[in-house]
Amino acid sequence: MTEAAARRRGRGGGGAARRAERTAVSIETAKYIERNIPNFEVLNEEALEIIETNAETVLEEIGVNFVENPAALERWRQAGADVQGERVHIPRGLARELIKTAPGSFTQHARNPERSVEIGGRNLVLAPVYGPPFVRDMDGGRRYATMADFEKFVKLGYMSKWLHHSGGTVCEPTDVPVNKRHLDMLHAHMTLSDKPFMGSVTEPSRAQDSVDMAGLLFGKEFVQDNTVMTSLININSPMTFDDVMMGAMEVYAENNQACIVSPFIVGGAMAPVTVAGTLTQVMAEVLAGIAYNQLCRAGAPVIMGAFVTSIDMNSGAPTFGTPEAAHITYGAGQIARRLGLPYRSAGSFTGSKLPDAQAAYETSNSLNMGLLSGVNFMLHACGWLEGGLVSSFEKFVMDADQLGVLHHLAKGISMDENGQGMDAIREVGPGGHYLGCAHTQANFKSAFWRTNMLDYKPFEQWAEEGERDTMTLANLKMKQMLEQYQQPALDPGIAESLAAFVAEKKASMPDAFS
Amino acid sequence: MTEAAARRRGRGGGGAARRAERTAVSIETAKYIERNIPNFEVLNEEALEIIETNAETVLEEIGVNFVENPAALERWRQAGADVQGERVHIPRGLARELIKTAPGSFTQHARNPERSVEIGGRNLVLAPVYGPPFVRDMDGGRRYATMADFEKFVKLGYMSKWLHHSGGTVCEPTDVPVNKRHLDMLHAHMTLSDKPFMGSVTEPSRAQDSVDMAGLLFGKEFVQDNTVMTSLININSPMTFDDVMMGAMEVYAENNQACIVSPFIVGGAMAPVTVAGTLTQVMAEVLAGIAYNQLCRAGAPVIMGAFVTSIDMNSGAPTFGTPEAAHITYGAGQIARRLGLPYRSAGSFTGSKLPDAQAAYETSNSLNMGLLSGVNFMLHACGWLEGGLVSSFEKFVMDADQLGVLHHLAKGISMDENGQGMDAIREVGPGGHYLGCAHTQANFKSAFWRTNMLDYKPFEQWAEEGERDTMTLANLKMKQMLEQYQQPALDPGIAESLAAFVAEKKASMPDAFS
Repeated sequence: MTEAAARRRGRGGGGAARRAERTAVSIETAKYIERNIPNFEVLNEEALEIIETNAETVLEEIGVNFVENPAALERWRQAGADVQGERVHIPRGLARELIKTAPGSFTQHARNPERSVEIGGRNLVLAPVYGPPFVRDMDGGRRYATMADFEKFVKLGYMSKWLHHSGGTVCEPTDVPVNKRHLDMLHAHMTLSDKPFMGSVTEPSRAQDSVDMAGLLFGKEFVQDNTVMTSLININSPMTFDDVMMGAMEVYAENNQACIVSPFIVGGAMAPVTVAGTLTQVMAEVLAGIAYNQLCRAGAPVIMGAFVTSIDMNSGAPTFGTPEAAHITYGAGQIARRLGLPYRSAGSFTGSKLPDAQAAYETSNSLNMGLLSGVNFMLHACGWLEGGLVSSFEKFVMDADQLGVLHHLAKGISMDENGQGMDAIREVGPGGHYLGCAHTQANFKSAFWRTNMLDYKPFEQWAEEGERDTMTLANLKMKQMLEQYQQPALDPGIAESLAAFVAEKKASMPDAFS
Repeated sequence: MTEAAARRRGRGGGGAARRAERTAVSIETAKYIERNIPNFEVLNEEALEIIETNAETVLEEIGVNFVENPAALERWRQAGADVQGERVHIPRGLARELIKTAPGSFTQHARNPERSVEIGGRNLVLAPVYGPPFVRDMDGGRRYATMADFEKFVKLGYMSKWLHHSGGTVCEPTDVPVNKRHLDMLHAHMTLSDKPFMGSVTEPSRAQDSVDMAGLLFGKEFVQDNTVMTSLININSPMTFDDVMMGAMEVYAENNQACIVSPFIVGGAMAPVTVAGTLTQVMAEVLAGIAYNQLCRAGAPVIMGAFVTSIDMNSGAPTFGTPEAAHITYGAGQIARRLGLPYRSAGSFTGSKLPDAQAAYETSNSLNMGLLSGVNFMLHACGWLEGGLVSSFEKFVMDADQLGVLHHLAKGISMDENGQGMDAIREVGPGGHYLGCAHTQANFKSAFWRTNMLDYKPFEQWAEEGERDTMTLANLKMKQMLEQYQQPALDPGIAESLAAFVAEKKASMPDAFS
């Protein structure tokens, strides 16, 4: 609302202010990753067939529950499923047949067309952390997240070169009533950034508000013909599809907006404790969920999700960056490709309370496997802390820098004449030095990935500057980014209509805090 | 010497003391990794052929230098190379032919046969950091390494479950004269640990001392017929083989001991700034070095090494955990398999001054690629800090814990009936909970990798315990391990002869400090 008010004042200031807005400095954003490297495949064809056969058995024999959703049960009945109470038994092959209408790849449009992303194929789109009720930074410690925090994260996301997507609930703004939060959040994504974003899923009516606000931003007709939001629909694993999530998904599918249909699994609690068992359940759940999505609207864009962690069997705490999570992520990628669906998994996962070494080990394990497993949409790609309870300002910046590593890894190895570098080897010869040779001079600017925040200084200089660790450097970087932030230009008429929509909606409801 | 003295006293104490030594508690060490997952291949066959053709061109047209080593030049002449001064031009195909006698895999024996390792094939053997002149811990900060530090690192390596190898120069004991250091270092590896170890390479005479001491430990005949040391022979890149390293290698090869023949490359300085160019030079250097090794003794065990970092083009500092290093490591793995040689690369690399998030990001990037690139021998697998200038006590323990992740990743996915877990899915059903089911109970102890030091505690407990970060937890763990350390049993006669050898050798030379 503060931003919207500022914008209205800008408009009141007349044409000069408007022109200033339109010409505001645009921050560089890398294009989404187009992989030029293979995927890592941990399962062979025989293993994939076993998993698929078992998943079909789960759907047919055990079935899945669609809870408090008579319309969904009716849709399933019509499609040929055996519905017993809320339990839907899906005959072998039916879900596989129904998902055939789902596109293998789709464009999610951003209001700045240069920031639109293609989700699917060999691409990887990176989006920030989603969902934490707390934030943490070095200055204020750990505390409940507010709308002011939310806006800072959206600004940081806009400023982050390697982040293609503004995300959704980058943190839960707990100072805004729960029934009005989605309006302020969407408003922030739409006005403080020009990258693509996610819609609300916490009530079907809030999904509808998201569609309506997108209509104001993009034009109503554009939204009906194009995908402008990708939203997160979690499955209540094991094998339960609740009415709130399905209701939101119905709204999005009917409006041609994308959904990530995602099992949410802590291994050993919501799925079998073994990897192949978990993959079987993931495949069954995804088949049922995406088939239902296509029953709502054949051809609606959809992503196969897999949010899977392991569990510490001592404490029951979810664990991250583990080898079992890696196996599942690699395997689920193979399942997604088998089904011809875009794939969402991995992220900056960690159980650590601080953006320390544990956080970085676990995050790096997950980011690397995310790239190699063929993920197309990586939610939580930066900023996640403490098992998803906390959005960390410092870790957001640290992780976002590491996302550059993924971009360069994905490029693969150039084998052209310049890449082969034989002239350089000839020029330098045994015992020589390459720094000064022509080939090095011609290539050094682009040859190596360059961090924007890690420390490579000589020890003495580093010691003189106060022996700063990564968290401290990230804290400085984060503040610098927020200082340099400039709001992207937006048509003042659109800005005003969005602000008015939010104000009216909020005025029409009493506050609710749970 | 302290240890040896203690041992002699033990012997003086009679039979009871000897029996106590023999029954001393043995620490659990995991078997070396036997991969059940594929390697990640970033180059296609065409690219590999280009690199091989170019590498042969480098050897033939440009050649390599064997410096101050007339015997080596004569060996090359005899083998059919065109020798001009110190420059050896190797006709196309000759080096490839000469390396055919090198074994694809070999056993390095440990004095405890349970700790012997098989280097090559699909295996991965993990060894600690090598070479830093400084150490760092939270208690004493950064300081020159001493023999007391060295002994602590050997003890920590012995106590580390996921470390298969005791390594070599885990830090440089700068308080011991440079010409006597190798004796104390070998003595520590031989008596404080029963894992396999590395020999000295800093002078040919020190390599001979290493062989002689190994003869005392294993028996002279055993050493002549079996490999009991793997030692690190760095190539002076680009394409220069100096007399010290080659002299040491000659001693080892002639005694049937293993060498890692390893280009040492900071990309853009010692090799072309492009990945394919660097791979070409790596392949040429390795072909020349290993061919020369086989000229010294056909059939001697040998490892193809590739130590490659990129460079920060601003400061000239080497950089670690970068995407370019990953490309080279993946590509060099493919070259090693093409040549049928065991492969050494990757490690706990970082440029960070502290065991902080930067250190962990960079290390994790490198450890993951090390596993997936098919590395057979990973030197520096734990404890490396500050670009290799520092051995970190805390990071040693932190990294060593992460090596457990590699073990579990390498296992792959079990597809047997238990792995498929269909009974569990049937038992639990939609909306149920897996924690209590029979399948979970039967599998939970072995299903998930378990850290030995990372924090999974609830926030409140963690806060009450002082909000400790990973470095602090590692410091405690390190001290606990050193407290619990018990020296592995060693035959008192052998212990005495080793101590006597070291004492006599040291007494026979004046101290040298450079």
